Amino acid sequence: MVNFDKEKVEKTLREYLDPSVNLILQIGNYILDGGGKRVRPYLVLKFSKALRGYNEEKDYILSAALEYLHTASLLHDDVVDGSEKRRGKPTVNRVFGNDTTVLVGDYMYANALYLFSIYGDIDMIKNVSDSVKKMAEGQLLELKKIADFETSFDDYYKIVLGKTAVLFGSCCYVGTALASSDQNLKDMAYNYGLNIGIAFQIVDDILDYEGKEEKVGKSLMNDLKEGKITYPLLVIKEELKDEDKSFIKSVILDKNPPMENLLKAKKIVEDYQGVEKAKEHARDYVRKAIENLKDFPDNKDKEDLINLAYYIVKRDI
Amino acid sequence: MVNFDKEKVEKTLREYLDPSVNLILQIGNYILDGGGKRVRPYLVLKFSKALRGYNEEKDYILSAALEYLHTASLLHDDVVDGSEKRRGKPTVNRVFGNDTTVLVGDYMYANALYLFSIYGDIDMIKNVSDSVKKMAEGQLLELKKIADFETSFDDYYKIVLGKTAVLFGSCCYVGTALASSDQNLKDMAYNYGLNIGIAFQIVDDILDYEGKEEKVGKSLMNDLKEGKITYPLLVIKEELKDEDKSFIKSVILDKNPPMENLLKAKKIVEDYQGVEKAKEHARDYVRKAIENLKDFPDNKDKEDLINLAYYIVKRDI
Repeated sequence: MVNFDKEKVEKTLREYLDPSVNLILQIGNYILDGGGKRVRPYLVLKFSKALRGYNEEKDYILSAALEYLHTASLLHDDVVDGSEKRRGKPTVNRVFGNDTTVLVGDYMYANALYLFSIYGDIDMIKNVSDSVKKMAEGQLLELKKIADFETSFDDYYKIVLGKTAVLFGSCCYVGTALASSDQNLKDMAYNYGLNIGIAFQIVDDILDYEGKEEKVGKSLMNDLKEGKITYPLLVIKEELKDEDKSFIKSVILDKNPPMENLLKAKKIVEDYQGVEKAKEHARDYVRKAIENLKDFPDNKDKEDLINLAYYIVKRDI
Repeated sequence: MVNFDKEKVEKTLREYLDPSVNLILQIGNYILDGGGKRVRPYLVLKFSKALRGYNEEKDYILSAALEYLHTASLLHDDVVDGSEKRRGKPTVNRVFGNDTTVLVGDYMYANALYLFSIYGDIDMIKNVSDSVKKMAEGQLLELKKIADFETSFDDYYKIVLGKTAVLFGSCCYVGTALASSDQNLKDMAYNYGLNIGIAFQIVDDILDYEGKEEKVGKSLMNDLKEGKITYPLLVIKEELKDEDKSFIKSVILDKNPPMENLLKAKKIVEDYQGVEKAKEHARDYVRKAIENLKDFPDNKDKEDLINLAYYIVKRDI
């Protein structure tokens, strides 16, 4: 994340939270202080600067609004998953309770849309609220598809769009819309965001198969352990011989599969080149993302966006 | 609720839920089928008809959007409160789990804003998203003020605005904005909504003190039992003699006060005329609400809105 005024982003994030109830400020600061790379604000600011040449105050405000949407979804996620820790700190739900966490998430969603009603326009709100719908839809589908071997590519995409890609897309859309009314550019920016989002998620899936535990920051083979079919398995699922298929099905259905079985499943996926194919597909999405930028002017900011796309598939894969 | 095409409201509510994930439709229908008076759509439709003379399709769509916001807040409320039943049916969180309930609520919030981005305008979105912020703020404050004898009028209003009044206000604002661009009318409509909302909540508080259990549909003195200071107590709190004050404080701090103590507290509040004064104040809010309608044309729909305001304080008090 280069050539990016992260300090101003952090300042804006705290300035526009603006609740009348102190508890929200306290929890808001707790989660904002937890850190994060601020990829979403980065995307907004890069696209608007790529087109306008500089960033205006409202770019920062709407980049904060999009980070609030992300934060709201993390808060609700932690309630949904019953998570204990995030970025090494106890989650908000552990410290303040599920009730408070749900409501602070609601506040952040509403505050984001409120900021869009003041500093944005109706077209941005349409794009952003559509993304929030898809985020909820994707997470619901993910819950429903747990331990379901019949998970399809279509299901996977809906899940991944909701998890990461649509909000990335909205950040790019909003960044572009802040500096241009060209619908083609806005759509291309949105597609760039979707494509890097999908690539990002596939890489995440790969890292769960064969990352280095100390770098990934959590134990491996978590997805399969939780009964989730992710890209490396999805991409070779139809090729599996009956006995391999039965074995993997049994692992997915097992609520607490022993590590031995997880490692055997991993070996099967690797034998069918699942991880290799997943890497290849992630690179395809990165290529598509870069193609989406072709109508944007060539400058330093576009270069940073191209490098961001490359960086996604370079994360230790 | 008279002169009101409730059937068309019900049809619209089901038509515009429109999720790509079937589970949302299933849960959406479960909660919509639970019924409800649809006060919020009623307010939207009455205001737009009072000004335009008839209702357009988009009035119905945005009245559904506002009912989705209400539904989303009920879903999240049930998670926050850990409720078991609503309108005699097991709550969504009991049947489908807290995780799903939170996400379906998120979907409904987002869908409502999405519909506003298509059928409404930026000014409506500003008003509505501000209300959603205040709803979350009010509920958080209510959680925080439990067992706090120092709850002030200011706290009470923030809580009540969030619980009922701001969404009523937004319904009236949107209904007016659908048929008029007169800012004064929009503001007056919003104030009418706030005033009937506050009156409604004060009446609710009174019913918890002295309603008929079979009519209220739940046991009495629930608020005090849960440590909540509501209007009949709030309005006489500063007049309490030391021994009465200490007794009521002890009841509020007691996590499970015996009925005997609740009844003694009720008697004290009644002796200080708390319930009488609350009734009087509720009537004041209804009077203010009716005054807010003075610039609206005199017709059948305005009459219905006046009667609705009167009806609120007539509910068995």
